[in-house]
Amino acid sequence: MVTRLSGDDGFVNQKIRDRYIRLARGEPGLMVVEATAVHGSKSGPLLRMNDEKFIAGHREMVDEIRRLSDTKVALQIIHFLKIARSGWRQLVTDLSLDVIAAIPGLYASAAERAVRAGYDAVELHMAHAYTLSSFLSRVNKRTDEYGGTLENRLRLPSEVLTAVRQAVGSSFCVGVRFDGEECIKNGYSAEESKLMALRFATLGADYVSLSAGGKFEDAVKKEGEPLYPYTGYSGDRTMPAVQYPDMTNIHIAETVKRFLVGNGFMTPVIATGKIRTRAQMESVLATGQADLVGIARGLLADPDLPRKLRAGREDTVVRCVYANVCKNLDENFQEVRCFLWPKGELNAPLVDDDEPPIWKDREPWLKTAEETGKVKLEWSEALDPLGIHGYEIFRAAGMEAFESFAKQPAYYHRRWFDKNVISGIAYRYFVKAYDLAGNRSGPTPTVEVSLEKSAGR
Amino acid sequence: MVTRLSGDDGFVNQKIRDRYIRLARGEPGLMVVEATAVHGSKSGPLLRMNDEKFIAGHREMVDEIRRLSDTKVALQIIHFLKIARSGWRQLVTDLSLDVIAAIPGLYASAAERAVRAGYDAVELHMAHAYTLSSFLSRVNKRTDEYGGTLENRLRLPSEVLTAVRQAVGSSFCVGVRFDGEECIKNGYSAEESKLMALRFATLGADYVSLSAGGKFEDAVKKEGEPLYPYTGYSGDRTMPAVQYPDMTNIHIAETVKRFLVGNGFMTPVIATGKIRTRAQMESVLATGQADLVGIARGLLADPDLPRKLRAGREDTVVRCVYANVCKNLDENFQEVRCFLWPKGELNAPLVDDDEPPIWKDREPWLKTAEETGKVKLEWSEALDPLGIHGYEIFRAAGMEAFESFAKQPAYYHRRWFDKNVISGIAYRYFVKAYDLAGNRSGPTPTVEVSLEKSAGR
Repeated sequence: MVTRLSGDDGFVNQKIRDRYIRLARGEPGLMVVEATAVHGSKSGPLLRMNDEKFIAGHREMVDEIRRLSDTKVALQIIHFLKIARSGWRQLVTDLSLDVIAAIPGLYASAAERAVRAGYDAVELHMAHAYTLSSFLSRVNKRTDEYGGTLENRLRLPSEVLTAVRQAVGSSFCVGVRFDGEECIKNGYSAEESKLMALRFATLGADYVSLSAGGKFEDAVKKEGEPLYPYTGYSGDRTMPAVQYPDMTNIHIAETVKRFLVGNGFMTPVIATGKIRTRAQMESVLATGQADLVGIARGLLADPDLPRKLRAGREDTVVRCVYANVCKNLDENFQEVRCFLWPKGELNAPLVDDDEPPIWKDREPWLKTAEETGKVKLEWSEALDPLGIHGYEIFRAAGMEAFESFAKQPAYYHRRWFDKNVISGIAYRYFVKAYDLAGNRSGPTPTVEVSLEKSAGR
Repeated sequence: MVTRLSGDDGFVNQKIRDRYIRLARGEPGLMVVEATAVHGSKSGPLLRMNDEKFIAGHREMVDEIRRLSDTKVALQIIHFLKIARSGWRQLVTDLSLDVIAAIPGLYASAAERAVRAGYDAVELHMAHAYTLSSFLSRVNKRTDEYGGTLENRLRLPSEVLTAVRQAVGSSFCVGVRFDGEECIKNGYSAEESKLMALRFATLGADYVSLSAGGKFEDAVKKEGEPLYPYTGYSGDRTMPAVQYPDMTNIHIAETVKRFLVGNGFMTPVIATGKIRTRAQMESVLATGQADLVGIARGLLADPDLPRKLRAGREDTVVRCVYANVCKNLDENFQEVRCFLWPKGELNAPLVDDDEPPIWKDREPWLKTAEETGKVKLEWSEALDPLGIHGYEIFRAAGMEAFESFAKQPAYYHRRWFDKNVISGIAYRYFVKAYDLAGNRSGPTPTVEVSLEKSAGR
């Protein structure tokens, strides 16, 4: 997940180090350090590995991660095409054969530097709007051996993987991340991506990690800004927001995995895309839809999620609400953080604490009011010796069970509007406070609300 | 499913009668006659029910269907906004309160005429790019009581349903078809459509039928042609083509159904969208994802599908290949037919025949050849006393099982190109012929092919 914490110079700086060390403290099985350029093309804040001078910073960070955590660390390496504020963007058809011929070497050199920096793995970025994904795309309009048929679209990505394997040796872990579906008109879907996965497996990829969408083709142009490939529907599929179903893209991973197994390849498949709860993750693994679960936004909201799940403390997880504030920060070249964190923090709080917060008033309260088709909620203040992180709003609609419905960070007003209501059913609410470690307070009293005005009666 | 078989005059003609009688002979549980306008707005070929003069034609068709079939028959009624070849289209914000106030009455009158025409049900079209769907939409920008909040967006559709119920009485079946997800940027998803379903259930809808997408917002403009709302990604979700997973939208129906039940409503839910096989249909029903399965393209390819499934003869079904030739015909105001039918026919063949076709040569043959990243197949001719319908190509990729992979109508060349192949795996093929009743011949010999040239080696 791009952090926008690096400078334009491409070096690992203190902020980058702090972010990945914080993430590593949560003990994910494998942590993938954000997209790092294999070439020198101009861009916004972005890590780089296109020169020997970048190795030391990575080495230092990886060493520190090793001292603090057992997590494995991969470096994701990327080549991207040029874009301009005018809206112009370089297409694969604009690349000369000389430029194409240099790309495998750029990836190979960056990968070999990652080995020397101490990483456990490199992940080749072949997803979304970037160079290798644009070759894989069904809208790759090249008419030579690098476009047109699936075999030709696979050529450069295959050459890159082969060159990287040669550079890092047979025992180093090389993963490939690519789109399982393009999610654009005339884009490819799992019927083709399963063949791509098979090709990568055949060429010795140690895992395939599946994303979706994130293409320029349906991106929404903002005047004076370079095109951002996560503004269209395909971008929604890369980072499915609150309105999308949980595990939006899981059927793609399942199709790819089944196909690999059917062809005799046990290559691990990583599934991603709004896989939220422990039950969902266990089900993905138990039913063989995938071998690993990839999490980005969930770990931004709470880097301790893996540790908490292992400790049987899912109840203390600070859950991402999929509002995609982080995505908007990335789009605007702002430092990527989670709006659920305490204000101004550049990382999720790190505290060791088992004590839940308590309500300031002896009797906590929750007030509700109807405001033109919305329900307004206000509630008591909570206290915690180490600090309140936020408030969690639980709701039951009609006869349904209560569910965690929204979160309000502690630095906001202690009020929240529920706009997803209609008249004719009763809504019940209660609120819990949670502290910096994610411990929950007891609930406020439950309050029931019904909108008065109804349509069509 | 719009047929484009009616004239511009809006009357039921012979072609319309023939089409729905053919469909009824397949004995679906409930057959929905295509979108029929409740108002007089100009449009291409389209059935109408905005005047008394249209009743007789419907009456005659329904009477004939009753004589030949036990299927129940519903009329789908629709109000649509204006569009122009210039690209201009009327928005809900362009409608005066007077125009809005007339819409419930238009629906009610059309529904009441449908009762007199002898229909078993009316289905209110609130899906896709049309008027009521545009009110339900999250991109409905009205600032008065007909837009903005969910309650306001529901107002006109609720008024329509209430007016129709009043007009047809409490015992007549009234269904509502609407989008479970808009599948456009900032569009609604199941979190809102489940609330809409609850509103319709509360107002006495006898069923809700879920579609998806089909919006103008992401439609692709063709110069000089009016905007067609099935050209963007959202249109793909309405009629998921070959590249989309089976049962693309089933999770939406499931969410809506579960919510209705959770709120004490047993209102039947109809799921649609590439539900192909008997096993899939049984699973939808058995697991309670929905109560009825809606099929459009599958019944165009083979109207006898329901009858064949009931008779345990799924092996004779002529399966839709989801190439969406029918959708392209609709887009171009051409009569909608299936390209799998014998050339020139306006309906699927109707034959009673248990005899499978035989191969003309004593030893049927299948030849394959590699052509620049594709596999070319050619095969023997088959014979059948009542006529050959087409050829079915079966394929096994690598170690996978054989599956029905493509169909070639008998009026085409007896050859076919498989473009979905890569080098490095072996593909095995055989072909069967099927006759007009769907009986299959024995297979040709199995042939194995591998592409020679490979990328990245």
